[in-house]
Amino acid sequence: MTKEKVVLAYSGGLDTSVEIAWLKNAGYDVIACCIDVGEEKDLVQIQAKGRQVGAVASVVIDAKQEFAEEYCLPALQAHAYYEGEYPLVSALSRPLIAKKLVEVAQQYQATTIAHGCTGKGNDQVRFETEIHALAPELKIEDPIRDQHMSREMEIEYAKENGIPVPITKESPYSIDENLWGRANECGILEDPWATAPEDAYERTTALEKTPDTPTYLEISFEQGVPVALDGQQYPLHELIQVVNQVAGQHGIGRIDHVENRLIGIKSREIYECPGAEVLLTAHKDLEDLTTTNDLAHFKPLIEKEIADTIYNALWYTPLFDALKAFLAESQKEVNGTVRVKLFKGNVICEGRKSKNSLYDMNLATYTAADSFDQEAAAGFIKLYSLPSTVHTQVQQQLAKAPEMQ
Amino acid sequence: MTKEKVVLAYSGGLDTSVEIAWLKNAGYDVIACCIDVGEEKDLVQIQAKGRQVGAVASVVIDAKQEFAEEYCLPALQAHAYYEGEYPLVSALSRPLIAKKLVEVAQQYQATTIAHGCTGKGNDQVRFETEIHALAPELKIEDPIRDQHMSREMEIEYAKENGIPVPITKESPYSIDENLWGRANECGILEDPWATAPEDAYERTTALEKTPDTPTYLEISFEQGVPVALDGQQYPLHELIQVVNQVAGQHGIGRIDHVENRLIGIKSREIYECPGAEVLLTAHKDLEDLTTTNDLAHFKPLIEKEIADTIYNALWYTPLFDALKAFLAESQKEVNGTVRVKLFKGNVICEGRKSKNSLYDMNLATYTAADSFDQEAAAGFIKLYSLPSTVHTQVQQQLAKAPEMQ
Amino acid sequence: MTKEKVVLAYSGGLDTSVEIAWLKNAGYDVIACCIDVGEEKDLVQIQAKGRQVGAVASVVIDAKQEFAEEYCLPALQAHAYYEGEYPLVSALSRPLIAKKLVEVAQQYQATTIAHGCTGKGNDQVRFETEIHALAPELKIEDPIRDQHMSREMEIEYAKENGIPVPITKESPYSIDENLWGRANECGILEDPWATAPEDAYERTTALEKTPDTPTYLEISFEQGVPVALDGQQYPLHELIQVVNQVAGQHGIGRIDHVENRLIGIKSREIYECPGAEVLLTAHKDLEDLTTTNDLAHFKPLIEKEIADTIYNALWYTPLFDALKAFLAESQKEVNGTVRVKLFKGNVICEGRKSKNSLYDMNLATYTAADSFDQEAAAGFIKLYSLPSTVHTQVQQQLAKAPEMQ
Amino acid sequence: MTKEKVVLAYSGGLDTSVEIAWLKNAGYDVIACCIDVGEEKDLVQIQAKGRQVGAVASVVIDAKQEFAEEYCLPALQAHAYYEGEYPLVSALSRPLIAKKLVEVAQQYQATTIAHGCTGKGNDQVRFETEIHALAPELKIEDPIRDQHMSREMEIEYAKENGIPVPITKESPYSIDENLWGRANECGILEDPWATAPEDAYERTTALEKTPDTPTYLEISFEQGVPVALDGQQYPLHELIQVVNQVAGQHGIGRIDHVENRLIGIKSREIYECPGAEVLLTAHKDLEDLTTTNDLAHFKPLIEKEIADTIYNALWYTPLFDALKAFLAESQKEVNGTVRVKLFKGNVICEGRKSKNSLYDMNLATYTAADSFDQEAAAGFIKLYSLPSTVHTQVQQQLAKAPEMQ
Repeated sequence: MTKEKVVLAYSGGLDTSVEIAWLKNAGYDVIACCIDVGEEKDLVQIQAKGRQVGAVASVVIDAKQEFAEEYCLPALQAHAYYEGEYPLVSALSRPLIAKKLVEVAQQYQATTIAHGCTGKGNDQVRFETEIHALAPELKIEDPIRDQHMSREMEIEYAKENGIPVPITKESPYSIDENLWGRANECGILEDPWATAPEDAYERTTALEKTPDTPTYLEISFEQGVPVALDGQQYPLHELIQVVNQVAGQHGIGRIDHVENRLIGIKSREIYECPGAEVLLTAHKDLEDLTTTNDLAHFKPLIEKEIADTIYNALWYTPLFDALKAFLAESQKEVNGTVRVKLFKGNVICEGRKSKNSLYDMNLATYTAADSFDQEAAAGFIKLYSLPSTVHTQVQQQLAKAPEMQ
Repeated sequence: MTKEKVVLAYSGGLDTSVEIAWLKNAGYDVIACCIDVGEEKDLVQIQAKGRQVGAVASVVIDAKQEFAEEYCLPALQAHAYYEGEYPLVSALSRPLIAKKLVEVAQQYQATTIAHGCTGKGNDQVRFETEIHALAPELKIEDPIRDQHMSREMEIEYAKENGIPVPITKESPYSIDENLWGRANECGILEDPWATAPEDAYERTTALEKTPDTPTYLEISFEQGVPVALDGQQYPLHELIQVVNQVAGQHGIGRIDHVENRLIGIKSREIYECPGAEVLLTAHKDLEDLTTTNDLAHFKPLIEKEIADTIYNALWYTPLFDALKAFLAESQKEVNGTVRVKLFKGNVICEGRKSKNSLYDMNLATYTAADSFDQEAAAGFIKLYSLPSTVHTQVQQQLAKAPEMQ
Repeated sequence: MTKEKVVLAYSGGLDTSVEIAWLKNAGYDVIACCIDVGEEKDLVQIQAKGRQVGAVASVVIDAKQEFAEEYCLPALQAHAYYEGEYPLVSALSRPLIAKKLVEVAQQYQATTIAHGCTGKGNDQVRFETEIHALAPELKIEDPIRDQHMSREMEIEYAKENGIPVPITKESPYSIDENLWGRANECGILEDPWATAPEDAYERTTALEKTPDTPTYLEISFEQGVPVALDGQQYPLHELIQVVNQVAGQHGIGRIDHVENRLIGIKSREIYECPGAEVLLTAHKDLEDLTTTNDLAHFKPLIEKEIADTIYNALWYTPLFDALKAFLAESQKEVNGTVRVKLFKGNVICEGRKSKNSLYDMNLATYTAADSFDQEAAAGFIKLYSLPSTVHTQVQQQLAKAPEMQ
Repeated sequence: MTKEKVVLAYSGGLDTSVEIAWLKNAGYDVIACCIDVGEEKDLVQIQAKGRQVGAVASVVIDAKQEFAEEYCLPALQAHAYYEGEYPLVSALSRPLIAKKLVEVAQQYQATTIAHGCTGKGNDQVRFETEIHALAPELKIEDPIRDQHMSREMEIEYAKENGIPVPITKESPYSIDENLWGRANECGILEDPWATAPEDAYERTTALEKTPDTPTYLEISFEQGVPVALDGQQYPLHELIQVVNQVAGQHGIGRIDHVENRLIGIKSREIYECPGAEVLLTAHKDLEDLTTTNDLAHFKPLIEKEIADTIYNALWYTPLFDALKAFLAESQKEVNGTVRVKLFKGNVICEGRKSKNSLYDMNLATYTAADSFDQEAAAGFIKLYSLPSTVHTQVQQQLAKAPEMQ
């Protein structure tokens, strides 16, 4: 009789290695599946380890390009910051990983997907909600959470099942990362009054050690997609990597935030998003030049909803499809180049130009070239202020003759 | 026969000095009125000059405290940035200046208020809309705009009317400033691709010249009002001045923005708001700690409306009163202290604490002190993902049996 | 040794009578508590029955006035319709009932509150969330739900414990009602294609049987509170009752709605809200006359959030307090009288007048009395259309000379 | 030498006939252009009259189909009501008429477009803004407004220029109508306390005279488009006409509203939109069945923005394109049939069904078929109420030990 198959989101670490053993012991054939969204993992080694600790198959997927083009890009164009503070990071990769797991499950005819999230984080909600949205027929297992395995129990279980136990001291931090950023929680960070120590950061240089010379970048966009740096074209995922590297050297993109998780608690995390910070700033600056006022003033409501929808794991929903349709339409004229100065943690947009620029120097100038009809202003002001005028007149009348009412 | 009286918003500069003469020649008794909202003007000298160039009375008003407490404070608590970019600056002082002009007009029984705004800026709309909203019975004059006086004509008119003409070369910039920031347009800035030159800035040190040692500040808030720095109490307007000074030295608060004016054109301006930037960042950080998720996630809509309402000169409206009522209620638990590091243009919130902190370490921790009920997550996820699950089931059924529909 | 005490939300029906027995058997002293929010219950009989089936105390509370003034009123002023369809009904009474239960628990030093909600409705979420928000130290019991007692098991348990079992056939419907309306689900209504049968309605006459003569009502409001009908003053809860009665006779306020519950499923319910429908329509009509355009155009966002916040059981939150502060401010000028015609299911606002009317006949008229400055329109249009004009000019230039870009 | 050409929006009435003469006298070759958007005009007669009173060419365009498919449809799908009260009517036809005028101008190489709107209404703003947005190079004339011609002056001018003057008494009302509805202002309606007289209505029967037997209609939608009535397919513009007729007989769709014009004044108008009312009600009812909760709860913000954007004459803007993209995406699953009862002014949705129905009877039922996991509710409630719980615990602690803070 064939065994049921389970596809496990596999990282190569202790938690998910123990889960391979546990799932195998529970009667499953385990397919380990490692998806690279920009953590710079050693996929070969992870693939080998998956087999070594008991998986019947070990799959590795380089999803960086898809992650950049389908997941980071809408977040960029929507200026998606969670709670106005950080550019989403983990929430962005979860739907892609869920999709890849479901694809592998369908390919292997697995009945089940397993993951190793804790019971108090956002990720369990995200993985499970997004898997349900893609394939409600699949079951979900999370042995570490559901068996209440502590670190000690895991090590015990690993030893019993021939799984290598790391000999280095465990990091105090819990880290997740991808192309768009790096998230870090736990340890000393759990005290919101404590300064985050320098060893909590990895992608960004401390301001005290950044270069004393700025880097200037000209970032070019076509329809809201960053396509070139200083005139050189890059595929999006490579462009993000380049900007991450340069901006990280200048100490750009550190964020320290107490956030509301979707499971109802506050947590304190630090983020490093050097590339995202630069691209988000430049993209907004170009939109300021190319987008009409009506669209520019309404889009923030869409942006907030997109950020919340991503954070809340509603990527695969009709709502998100509709939001993306709005977003795509809004990007058609976001063409041009922004010149940014990267220096001492700052992203400074010094200049911007576009064939779609709606800035009209002849209208804006105070020089003789002025083509603005200043006479029109009087009429405009008269009608613009009419509601307030009438309102105050009524108030004045009431104040004068209250007895007449 | 007595003449009609006009109250003129008087700055001491050429434009409004010429306006005194013009209004006098037009048959008015002119009351010059200069209101200090934090430009550090020489009020004594301006008062004297007003009389000297022909005003029958010259009034000066130090409105810094009122400006801080009644105008900057709601902008701070609402995290009011125009177009997500800069903290409003000029738009904030206009309603207060309009109110003071109306008060003086009522005191002197004037029939008219005069100002010297150009015909293509926001300020003419703001002054006139706000004056109409306060006293619709008052007439408004703007001779420079309505007589189409060019710079050359003004100088001619000044000479004819015994008004001193400045001998220094005219600044290429058009500047407005107050406690909350400094706005600068015109000159080379009219080219949005050009880097703003260093001489366009005044309140902030260039990053290249900022100190190599950070300044740390502990900013304490009571009900959303910043009340103390490093434990020392300040009245709000003085606190803003102190922070302006310290943050300016660290090069904080430069903003370069292409914005949509309310008269329908785009303009490019640069801003310097060192103190505002620090206070806004710290206040938001404290709110993250003390505000419940539901309020934190809705407040941004109110914030955006407040920013737009201020920018659009709707300060004295029932809408703004209602928005302020929401805002005041939202600040009741924003008590506590934020520790910020000011360094190389960056405002870094390193720690925050509050008696109203909603961060519960026993819920958030991953240590043994954990009091979070991880079992509850399974039920939560089940119901949370139910709508997506049902939706996908329906889609799958349709895909399987399209002919049955 | 003293027993723990539990306060049970008691209706007098089979479910909650069985719960008295169950809680008693589980070792509690039970305080039965029946709160009247406008169902026209026989409180004396319910109080007696509570004691009779085993409660150590039986408390009845007439909360109609408080319900009208503190709960219905904000819903009225906020034009709160869930999903744009019905005026909330059950969601409105839950926070008041929770508050009364907590007050009784504190008075009796009870440790626990019990209710009899099913496991798939909104009410369990509402009662428990609102009790937690008022008194997180109280435990909550729901024996019917948690013991999975079916109707048959309940009858069995009743017989064993000397509880009278109703001999009439059980209604197919599940009904909840209060001053603001009546909600009905279950039975044939579970088929959304089926027409709701006439016996599902109770408060409203079928259109086919309504009078052939309309009723006219002049409803007067002070600061957004309905205070008089045809000039006669009423306390709010009585005014609602009167309007319910009159409007019900005219068949007003039937609503048939498929809604999204907060636990993630859709359900179909019918509602009868005759009085609410009339008051909501009249109040909106008066606001149209007395509210400035800026407030009128923003308030709907607040209204939607208020409706959702009430539906989602977030009454006792800082968010709701802030929303109510906005609302209260918005009502200051909602004074005046609306003349409505009630006829054949229709609420027709035929006329409205107010000392705060912002309708200015001299501005609006097309007769010779016209005081509107038609010249101003040209200037207004010029600036109003400027962004579109510039945008199209840029597009035209691009279309003409694509190679030049 | 050739004359400049002007395209005049021509209705056949006195105003625009006088304008033909005036424009001709001003040196233009006039092309009269009459566009039928559902007023049931006698196009042949209007075309002849245009030539007769002096136009060099007279063009008539039946735009009913385009109006229904491109203009009414998004308004339907967006549930677009202005100020929550009426389905837009005039605002919907203006962009189409503007577009047709521009097309004719381009075809005839005209330099100018002329219209006959008054100087205090919305229509002048709409026509001119929308013409500018389509063809900023065209000039615009409005002789009646700009020459301040009163009714008497018009009649004088008509007589002098051989234009037939109507001998019937002028209607007291000012009426605009199209497929989607009929708008009526002026006369006695200018008093907002006065009941609109019966002669103000034309498309709807007075409730007192409607049939005593209801009409039942099954309205079928495909992707949000109404395609069939009682199973019979219709092109959209015919379907609207049929529903207008049936619903009008039942007295459906009368609306009496005091509204905020975009030029800053309030006006009182009455509307008749029988077909729109029925289709809007049925479409919303079907969405309630087929749309997921997340989309259903966000779409109202888009709907409000669409209504405002249309009202405010911003049809031809990038914002409106983006809003339409959202809307189109939201309609993909709005398939199915709604059974409505039309009776005595009421539109009653009695039943609805869809292959895309998200109502799952097995989840919703309270019978034995129940497949809802009631256990999950406990976990859901626990996390759902966690923020309120923590908030209250903090408040309680502060209340107990205020001195410790």
